Amino acid sequence: MRREKVYAVIVPTSDYHGSEYVGEYFKLREYLSGFTGSAGTLVVTLEEAALWTDSRYFLQAECELSGSGTELMKMGESSTPKIEKFLLEKMPENSTLGFDGRTLSQEFVSRLSKTLSEKNIGISSETDFAELVWKDRPPLSAEPVFELPEQICGVSRAEKFSRIREKMKAEHADCLVISALDEIAWTLNLRGNDIEFCPLFLGFMMIFSGGSQTKLFANKEIFSDEIIEKLKADGVEIYGYGEVYSALGDLSCNVWADPRAVNHRFLTSLEDAKLIEKSSPIEAMKAVKNQTEILCVKNAHLKDGVAVTRFMKWLKTSVSSEKITELSAAEKLEEFRKLGENYMGQSFAPIMAYGAHGAIVHYSASEETNAVIEPRGMLLSDTGGHYLDGTTDITRTIVLGEISEEEKRAFTLVLAGHLNLLAARFPEGTRGSTLDYAAREPLWQNGLDFGHGTGHGVGFLLNVHEGPQRISFRAQNDAPMQAGMITSDEPGLYVEEKFGIRHESLLLCEKDENDENDENDENDENDENDENMGFLRFSPLTLVPFDRDGIDVKYLTSRQLELLNDYHRLVFEKLSPLLSGEEKKWLEKATEPI
Amino acid sequence: MRREKVYAVIVPTSDYHGSEYVGEYFKLREYLSGFTGSAGTLVVTLEEAALWTDSRYFLQAECELSGSGTELMKMGESSTPKIEKFLLEKMPENSTLGFDGRTLSQEFVSRLSKTLSEKNIGISSETDFAELVWKDRPPLSAEPVFELPEQICGVSRAEKFSRIREKMKAEHADCLVISALDEIAWTLNLRGNDIEFCPLFLGFMMIFSGGSQTKLFANKEIFSDEIIEKLKADGVEIYGYGEVYSALGDLSCNVWADPRAVNHRFLTSLEDAKLIEKSSPIEAMKAVKNQTEILCVKNAHLKDGVAVTRFMKWLKTSVSSEKITELSAAEKLEEFRKLGENYMGQSFAPIMAYGAHGAIVHYSASEETNAVIEPRGMLLSDTGGHYLDGTTDITRTIVLGEISEEEKRAFTLVLAGHLNLLAARFPEGTRGSTLDYAAREPLWQNGLDFGHGTGHGVGFLLNVHEGPQRISFRAQNDAPMQAGMITSDEPGLYVEEKFGIRHESLLLCEKDENDENDENDENDENDENDENMGFLRFSPLTLVPFDRDGIDVKYLTSRQLELLNDYHRLVFEKLSPLLSGEEKKWLEKATEPI
Repeated sequence: MRREKVYAVIVPTSDYHGSEYVGEYFKLREYLSGFTGSAGTLVVTLEEAALWTDSRYFLQAECELSGSGTELMKMGESSTPKIEKFLLEKMPENSTLGFDGRTLSQEFVSRLSKTLSEKNIGISSETDFAELVWKDRPPLSAEPVFELPEQICGVSRAEKFSRIREKMKAEHADCLVISALDEIAWTLNLRGNDIEFCPLFLGFMMIFSGGSQTKLFANKEIFSDEIIEKLKADGVEIYGYGEVYSALGDLSCNVWADPRAVNHRFLTSLEDAKLIEKSSPIEAMKAVKNQTEILCVKNAHLKDGVAVTRFMKWLKTSVSSEKITELSAAEKLEEFRKLGENYMGQSFAPIMAYGAHGAIVHYSASEETNAVIEPRGMLLSDTGGHYLDGTTDITRTIVLGEISEEEKRAFTLVLAGHLNLLAARFPEGTRGSTLDYAAREPLWQNGLDFGHGTGHGVGFLLNVHEGPQRISFRAQNDAPMQAGMITSDEPGLYVEEKFGIRHESLLLCEKDENDENDENDENDENDENDENMGFLRFSPLTLVPFDRDGIDVKYLTSRQLELLNDYHRLVFEKLSPLLSGEEKKWLEKATEPI
Repeated sequence: MRREKVYAVIVPTSDYHGSEYVGEYFKLREYLSGFTGSAGTLVVTLEEAALWTDSRYFLQAECELSGSGTELMKMGESSTPKIEKFLLEKMPENSTLGFDGRTLSQEFVSRLSKTLSEKNIGISSETDFAELVWKDRPPLSAEPVFELPEQICGVSRAEKFSRIREKMKAEHADCLVISALDEIAWTLNLRGNDIEFCPLFLGFMMIFSGGSQTKLFANKEIFSDEIIEKLKADGVEIYGYGEVYSALGDLSCNVWADPRAVNHRFLTSLEDAKLIEKSSPIEAMKAVKNQTEILCVKNAHLKDGVAVTRFMKWLKTSVSSEKITELSAAEKLEEFRKLGENYMGQSFAPIMAYGAHGAIVHYSASEETNAVIEPRGMLLSDTGGHYLDGTTDITRTIVLGEISEEEKRAFTLVLAGHLNLLAARFPEGTRGSTLDYAAREPLWQNGLDFGHGTGHGVGFLLNVHEGPQRISFRAQNDAPMQAGMITSDEPGLYVEEKFGIRHESLLLCEKDENDENDENDENDENDENDENMGFLRFSPLTLVPFDRDGIDVKYLTSRQLELLNDYHRLVFEKLSPLLSGEEKKWLEKATEPI
């Protein structure tokens, strides 16, 4: 740091694309700090080191950082300063802050610069500190890319390019720069394997309007000759992964880039271009699944439903006779999933949280914490899979024996909220920040709440978390729900050191056919443009019973009970043809009307 | 216009303060166009004239504009261009647009200039066209100002100034410029009578930080010597109403102004000042009522409840024997209100809408439309009063005889939503855009909706519509609910040419005492800073029965029925000591449990 003349360095957990999960090559923060959690930012000054992470990792970080001298900064606690404030306080006037400009978003760096300008602190963003200090750094991942056939992805590359170019035209953009890996994979109908849990490959993309030219910046080695030829036919030429920055410098046209998505070096690389700062148009297109994707993902959920149902049956019937741990249960569930056709792997790190572990929202069992599952209490199981025909994400809370009144009440109130949201009908234009009321109402009425969002978008064989829609009453400017979006419905309740409950299914948003709202189009001064909007509703993609042993019907309204029985009837109808013998019998009992 | 060298002129319905209602002096748009509605914008070019207004005035405007050559522009319809687009299309390159810069908000003019810059169209904002063309223009109102005693407003001027100056300090503002009339009245604990339905006086205000200096720009004649002295003691000096613009030019410090609130000339008048563009801090302070205001407004609602209850009883029992019209009913209700102590007048133009008129959301009966109320169908009655101890706003839909199944269903579903919202409990930080789900859910489940907002803030002897909170699922960035806010709960349903339903009470937001949510403070990546938040709930201020004759219990859940009976029990308990004889007997029957 002294050689580089910097007083402090920021090491985030990030690749060059703002990905939620990152490849081994990018884990400098883990290498330097010893903290292995999936989220955290390390700040090293000439005097000290500190690591910011969120509540799900407090315990783990305390443990892993202990003795290292690195201070743990608990994000979300009022006594914890923001990174910007911390740096402003600790750094001397006129000193310099260093970071690899490819690992921080342009938006974050803008905010940072603004704060630090108070002390005239400069920024040095050209140094790759990982190269300087990390001796045995793993190589960049270079896994082969494969193409999704049109029977699975539904829309051709050419058609996607044409829709994107229409949006570019409307914004007078000559070049659209894309750095989000899932947006590149979606546009090109390609998938890869460069990041754990995400079927993505490393790359950047520039789409030019006017003609049909697209530049893809990626490791050419990972593409077969056949794919290279096909891409060429659609106007896509492949350039080196690292060449993107000099190519940005060569642009002298209107360039559309999303400051929340592109890294800082993108913007500093631009020289003569005129920048259009706006969200990428691909995020919204990708979120609305086409009819082919919907048919495929329904099939993926059938296979996944069978796997998770088998797992539930196995767990509940074996827990008193076998030694089962959180880790072995996760393995068992993955074994069931592997029996499904075209299973490709887990869509995120599985959460198998027994008893009090359930109250740790993003608990991930390790050899050290691995609990033995006993025939009492509950297991919170939040897992998902990628299949060639789609991505799943499901949480069931499984009752293993006796549970307390408090646990039953919590289990049932959370289920009531889950069912309320599942049954919501709403006009087009409604946002998840409004719909969240449905999921939280049974808890709120009892003075209870949970701290996480109720729902996130889910990609089609892409990231298990995607936008632009979400379901959270805290969200501002979240995108309205649209027919074709897939969103999770996952309320929860967590009682520290006791238990955790979460019930999660994925919901498909669809047009509601029984509109009778044509008569109501009065406006008043508060509103604009709501002529003849249609209604939307959800239908469940996830097909796995909720554990009846956790339900106390006195906490359900008659409507909620009806919804539960309807859902269980659907689960039995869809899954029973795919099961036999004991498993089918078990499902029949598990889905019996209450 | 040729002499002024302008190609087009905009004449909005606005005073210099962005008020919702405006005094006679400001009604140039009405004078020029002949359209008498309370909202509309006239555009006159050298070739043509057009008037923009919203759906509540389509019928009236069509009628009043017919034969005038002025084209009606129906806002909210997709074929109607926005004013900016219309001007951009119609105006030649390099021409000039004229308007009185005091009558348009800075925010609107910024947007307008940006659009018109495409054709290099200039702006001339110094001319008062009203002075040029309006021969017998009424004078500026100059009604006397009166002071609210501290037993009513609860907090002294000095205390308010000190809280405002704290906010100014945090923003490094040397001067806060206020142009919203209700913010000035609130800060000074003064009220006036310059605008129909609003106890306000015309003025501008500059609060300076550091010392205790405040400049009030208003007609000095309307203040008594006693008030002038008292103001002086609190550092407030009075200057001429029109002197504000030159005073702005003299400022050379950091000036805080809200671009949505101040008029265009404010900003063009600033010369050496550094501008801080941010919402006024007074809006949020004013919205949270103090304990004294709350006690007072509860009393105002008792008096108002008695008046409206008497009106309902009178109407329902007299409708078959007397000739009652929409206008005479409104007069009768005001007579009942006048019996209440310290009644000061109506808080807005009363809506008495019989039968199909009920479907016209902001219907206002005139001599031409005035319908005879008959012993069948329903009357939608949306009215309110100002009392010295607070402002009311209530809608009841009154059943006058036989109604159809469709009407009963609509009446009851809207009531179900009203009760859902009334009974909501929610954590601090929750916004009205989330709570709106509660009010709309019974309608949405049936594919029905209404086009207006569900709730607006209500001032304390100030404007009947105020922010910053509101209840509308379409709202973006609405302020969170806070204990002490008063908000309306007014879902509706409108079936064109048949009937309209609305049920409105004012709700007070309060801290919920039975929190049990301390145990739940887990966060996930979606959320920040929700440590140990408390819960809030509503309690009804408005105390008037809902007409039992409109209710079909089969459309209510058992919980909603319980809420209705609870509310009616409360109404009887509070109002019965204030009624006697037949009226008391009637109330007892009207509030009997169902």
